[in-house]
Amino acid sequence: MNQDTAALHPLDQAIRLSGDAGQYTGQTSAGYANMVGPFGGVIAATLLQAVMQHPERLGDPVALTVNFAAPIADGGFEVAARPARTSRSTQHWTMELSQGGQVAATATAITALRRETWEATDLPFPPAPAMDGLRSLKGLPGLPKWVSRYDLRLVRGGIPPLPQHEKPQAESSETLLWVRDEPPRPLDFVALASICDVFFPRSFIRRQRMAMAGTVSMTVYFHADAAALVAQGERELLAHARGQRFHGGFFDQAAEIWSPEGVLLATSNQVVYFKE
Amino acid sequence: MNQDTAALHPLDQAIRLSGDAGQYTGQTSAGYANMVGPFGGVIAATLLQAVMQHPERLGDPVALTVNFAAPIADGGFEVAARPARTSRSTQHWTMELSQGGQVAATATAITALRRETWEATDLPFPPAPAMDGLRSLKGLPGLPKWVSRYDLRLVRGGIPPLPQHEKPQAESSETLLWVRDEPPRPLDFVALASICDVFFPRSFIRRQRMAMAGTVSMTVYFHADAAALVAQGERELLAHARGQRFHGGFFDQAAEIWSPEGVLLATSNQVVYFKE
Repeated sequence: MNQDTAALHPLDQAIRLSGDAGQYTGQTSAGYANMVGPFGGVIAATLLQAVMQHPERLGDPVALTVNFAAPIADGGFEVAARPARTSRSTQHWTMELSQGGQVAATATAITALRRETWEATDLPFPPAPAMDGLRSLKGLPGLPKWVSRYDLRLVRGGIPPLPQHEKPQAESSETLLWVRDEPPRPLDFVALASICDVFFPRSFIRRQRMAMAGTVSMTVYFHADAAALVAQGERELLAHARGQRFHGGFFDQAAEIWSPEGVLLATSNQVVYFKE
Repeated sequence: MNQDTAALHPLDQAIRLSGDAGQYTGQTSAGYANMVGPFGGVIAATLLQAVMQHPERLGDPVALTVNFAAPIADGGFEVAARPARTSRSTQHWTMELSQGGQVAATATAITALRRETWEATDLPFPPAPAMDGLRSLKGLPGLPKWVSRYDLRLVRGGIPPLPQHEKPQAESSETLLWVRDEPPRPLDFVALASICDVFFPRSFIRRQRMAMAGTVSMTVYFHADAAALVAQGERELLAHARGQRFHGGFFDQAAEIWSPEGVLLATSNQVVYFKE
């Protein structure tokens, strides 16, 4: 690590890309290790970062889809990002992450210049006790390393022995939790993308036991604009997820990320491979 | 039209691709025309069709994301589909639709060999009166042509003067409707992908007035397997959609497609550009 990277937040180190004009190289980060390979949220953030630092980027992220095509080994990787089509206010991106000449993740993104319009939020903001009164998962044994890169506090929908504020509900795949980067870091689009993946697999919660599971595809719709990110700063986010159907080796999850005041910053969906 | 295509269902004509090994050509279909260009559902189905007829395809669709990058003109187009990574049981695809050498849509898909596992559906099946007692939108004036390629019957969440069974709700962006292909056609993955896009824009429903809107990106998670498609046959599907947040020129929609018995066949999300 040189002096440059020593000053960076661990997330910024993890998503750091060298190169230019859409051809980049990066390196997995031990601090964001998962059970096998890196935490998927950080891979999603890295693919979005390739768009964010591309010299031709127009506007801010509106949508991101990342497909996890193969396990990612610890070490170096290549990321390619290409603007597939640019209009006056919208830009469509395709991205790919490769290791050893083989595609390990594919992705698409849309960036756009947002305009002021009429606005409404139709999803209800879930009531939750303040973060301060809840126990953190920080430092608990047996959890993957990436968990320590967040301050996660479960209102409900954990799995014993993780501390949670409410009693476990029978046959529920819902989780409500507070989350912020650890150490705290001002929210931006890449951090928000990563946070959309902080939920433990819905199959663990629904069945109250752990087994193999891995995200296959993840989509984020960004509702936050630059002003909302500034307003959020380093504070905690309320994160809400539910399983929808578990069937034939896959389940899907719907999730939302809220500011503490109830501003809906992102909605996210993913489909996950699971074993019993 | 030759004898071959005359015998085809209009949907199969619309998504018909010539060529092989992932390089195809197709043609827009007047029967599925939207306000501007073709109905997005049929473009999504066409991009999935390029995977379905690819000689290297492994398994059935699990996820599909289609990004609408530019208006599609009536006439011919090219579709490229490529397996980016294949494992023992899962395959990752990237697709592109071009016109005149310019990308008009990008897409990714995942196909997989499904296995029997534990199963559960955590979303509630919405109660609805039988399709037979409801008025169809067929033949109503002023609607885009693609609407006549479906038998759509609104339980709630339409916009006057469209007939709907329940009174309009104030400030709701929810729609519940019955739908089947017109003429009836046995359900398959491509037809299901298209049906995920049959909802009028949530901004029309929420504000009870029409204005410009267009889908930017759409994701479908397939819960149906081959057996569920056979069980469904040509019958009606119950389709449910809600807006989540409308802000800065974009809104997102969450949707589900159910069999009449309450089997969740697909969940789908989209982000839509809108004007006031």
